[in-house]
Amino acid sequence: MPRIAYVNGRYVDHRAAAVHVEDRGYQFADGVYEVIHLFRNRLIDEEPHLDRLDRSLRELDMAWPMGRAAMRVAMREIVRRNGYATGLLYIQVTRGVAPRDHKFPQLPMSSLVMTVRPIPEFPDDMREEGVAVVTIDDIRWARRDIKSISLLPNVLGKQAAADAGAYEAWMIDADGMVTEGTSSNAWIVNGEGTLVTRPADHDILRGITRQAILRMADELDIAFEERPFSRDEALGAREAFMSNSSHFVTPVTRIDDNAIANGRPGSLSTALHERYLDFMKEFQKLN
Amino acid sequence: MPRIAYVNGRYVDHRAAAVHVEDRGYQFADGVYEVIHLFRNRLIDEEPHLDRLDRSLRELDMAWPMGRAAMRVAMREIVRRNGYATGLLYIQVTRGVAPRDHKFPQLPMSSLVMTVRPIPEFPDDMREEGVAVVTIDDIRWARRDIKSISLLPNVLGKQAAADAGAYEAWMIDADGMVTEGTSSNAWIVNGEGTLVTRPADHDILRGITRQAILRMADELDIAFEERPFSRDEALGAREAFMSNSSHFVTPVTRIDDNAIANGRPGSLSTALHERYLDFMKEFQKLN
Repeated sequence: MPRIAYVNGRYVDHRAAAVHVEDRGYQFADGVYEVIHLFRNRLIDEEPHLDRLDRSLRELDMAWPMGRAAMRVAMREIVRRNGYATGLLYIQVTRGVAPRDHKFPQLPMSSLVMTVRPIPEFPDDMREEGVAVVTIDDIRWARRDIKSISLLPNVLGKQAAADAGAYEAWMIDADGMVTEGTSSNAWIVNGEGTLVTRPADHDILRGITRQAILRMADELDIAFEERPFSRDEALGAREAFMSNSSHFVTPVTRIDDNAIANGRPGSLSTALHERYLDFMKEFQKLN
Repeated sequence: MPRIAYVNGRYVDHRAAAVHVEDRGYQFADGVYEVIHLFRNRLIDEEPHLDRLDRSLRELDMAWPMGRAAMRVAMREIVRRNGYATGLLYIQVTRGVAPRDHKFPQLPMSSLVMTVRPIPEFPDDMREEGVAVVTIDDIRWARRDIKSISLLPNVLGKQAAADAGAYEAWMIDADGMVTEGTSSNAWIVNGEGTLVTRPADHDILRGITRQAILRMADELDIAFEERPFSRDEALGAREAFMSNSSHFVTPVTRIDDNAIANGRPGSLSTALHERYLDFMKEFQKLN
């Protein structure tokens, strides 16, 4: 079965999936996106992802490319046509095609592109060993809560991590506090066993997996605090981990070449990850 | 003659000019651009624009899509095929097409897209009346010196200006100082008749027209200072103007609904604009 992409109403061979060079996503980064985990033919947390898409679009005064119900149908159809039971659904909405001019086009007609790619059901190579993180200055714009495609600083940060032999970069704000990773939210467990993560204001992305983890912490009676933490606090933490929709909970065992605790994945990270896998299985059965 | 675009080695009908949905320019804003003024078949300040392109590419560890000499040939060819004597040449280089992953692809192969569009020889409607500007917070990332396509905040700023009935937005940094416009550099003439513009550090774009104006100020014996200025200083200025490659020098006669001086274009702005037009004509004859 060839890989299929959805491009503005048409289902096309992935290799031929193209947008016009005056698509505002290409010339201005004038667009937003979502990545949804497809698990055994179910789109995990589909509604929270669509809620966040709605928020991103509203914050940018951008129209939905179609109604939300029609969108759900198109999402199912692109998944069905690709035939992968488990993978990632990528959704990108831009402000459409118009002659190059910074301000919004007079007749905004949003563009919609969707792709699907397969991933292993339980990718656990990173989970058993944990990953290394480096810290870098957070040089991004002031509205990281909008899931925009204006990702150049994230690209540079992820590459800086790779160049240093690490998996992710945690970004540090002007006050010396961790904001988040380049494609993940950042977490620690402090000496009292309290889970700490930054509040979802304009400084970080409102991670859907982040939200699920807070819910699970509540269910598991794990104390948590939503507040900024510093690099130093992270270095002295009992555990550290990152979260996103592709990998759920990934233990962070080194930060800037310092081992976190004994340098092994922590028990709370592991418990949250196991709980998340259970949630996915329950979600899959119920939906 | 149909409008022609250059897309990765091919000259195509503008309407059919397309890039793959996994072009990193479309998914990550992982690219840079230049806009060069075409005046009577000559590309004004072509070499400074290519120098800046080279700098942007180097800062992002991105390869040239071809050698600089070959690039000049392709630029002339796309201009020739479109047949406009006066217009704007738009050049965009991105880090190419690769499966979505933040970090740089293993085999980077830059993409190159070029388009040309006609403009009037001497668009002077804005020049006679001057334009209105509003001030907004500068929420952009920390590397505005790189001419990247990560332009979403600029888009939002330009739209905020339009919503307020103004032409441009001047952005204000955390210290209350003007950085620049969303697609132009910002200038004032103070009470002593001194030209003031912000130094070209990481906070603003290194405008090619900005550089030309500083050179002309020198030739015309106009005193100038490269230093930040505040909104208040701008409100009390003798003149204000903006500069870019599309419109050269455009007088700013209102800021946040306050008239600048007598609310008419200033004499120094006008002199610099006239000098710039002379420069273009000389450049055209000599090149």
